[in-house]
Amino acid sequence: MLDRARLSSLTLLSLEDVPPYQEAPETGLTFEDNARIKARAAFAATGLASVADDSGLEVGALNGMPGVLSARWAGVHGDDAANTALLLAQLRDVPDERRGATFVSACALVSASGEVVVRGEWPGTIAHEPRGDGGFGYDPVFIPAGCARTAAQLSPEEKDAVSHRGRALAALLPALRALASPS
Amino acid sequence: MLDRARLSSLTLLSLEDVPPYQEAPETGLTFEDNARIKARAAFAATGLASVADDSGLEVGALNGMPGVLSARWAGVHGDDAANTALLLAQLRDVPDERRGATFVSACALVSASGEVVVRGEWPGTIAHEPRGDGGFGYDPVFIPAGCARTAAQLSPEEKDAVSHRGRALAALLPALRALASPS
Repeated sequence: MLDRARLSSLTLLSLEDVPPYQEAPETGLTFEDNARIKARAAFAATGLASVADDSGLEVGALNGMPGVLSARWAGVHGDDAANTALLLAQLRDVPDERRGATFVSACALVSASGEVVVRGEWPGTIAHEPRGDGGFGYDPVFIPAGCARTAAQLSPEEKDAVSHRGRALAALLPALRALASPS
Repeated sequence: MLDRARLSSLTLLSLEDVPPYQEAPETGLTFEDNARIKARAAFAATGLASVADDSGLEVGALNGMPGVLSARWAGVHGDDAANTALLLAQLRDVPDERRGATFVSACALVSASGEVVVRGEWPGTIAHEPRGDGGFGYDPVFIPAGCARTAAQLSPEEKDAVSHRGRALAALLPALRALASPS
């Protein structure tokens, strides 16, 4: 996902590598708000430069929802199957030309040098039924623009190269490089 | 609901009073579209001046959804309990100041004289739990602006006097009067 060779002076840690802390609730109105909230909380808890992502699916026929509610659209956080089934049911009568959707990821980097927030988008359409077993979330019903397969039918490498999250993290590279090579 | 005394030269029929016909699907993008579609279908089938309503709940924190999907928000048409439970779950972390919502009704009158479409709105907020057993749909979780009770705790007369549908039908009165007293 990140070009590790060009960031070789950075050591990447995950939440599993640091002492547990209270993760900030995702109460923001936007992906950017939530990414910033989470990265600030991680930086405050660890003192280390912190990257956080908040992402979701914006569906045109639902006025941009599920949006920041993507992970709990059906009411229970993280129930991918329920969320996807609900989305398909809500769009049951929506014809192909109105099934446009965009995966959005906001990534925030918070460090002693300040804050950077970037956004990556992945446009596509919502399928009429799930296909594929890769990925997570709405991947089985998301058909990327210009693609015949769903996101769940892409390999991890194919997905990272074009996905919203891949694009957002790529947009964060200059800031990460600056951290890796302080002037 | 309608002021029958002032429309005494009209005979009001319901769908139960006319031969069955194929009701048009609610595939419009707006309440107005759907009301017009349904009134046109009724007029085409009966040759009688026809009034149709399409209505729903627009929730600010959901970018105006459920909107035209209000009756099937949880995936099954007309399951009020499921729709309401889903709405409450989606808004679980949304604070009071962001729980604003508006009931909207569009009413269409289609006759040999042409078409009239009007809109009625009823502003309020979404409660944290259902209260009351009157009304239908989202009434148990809708608190009208300036009201301490939910719409499901109002009498039918109280509700008709101020509701979105009552307001829309009131706005249709001049056109109905014109039909009743042709020049």
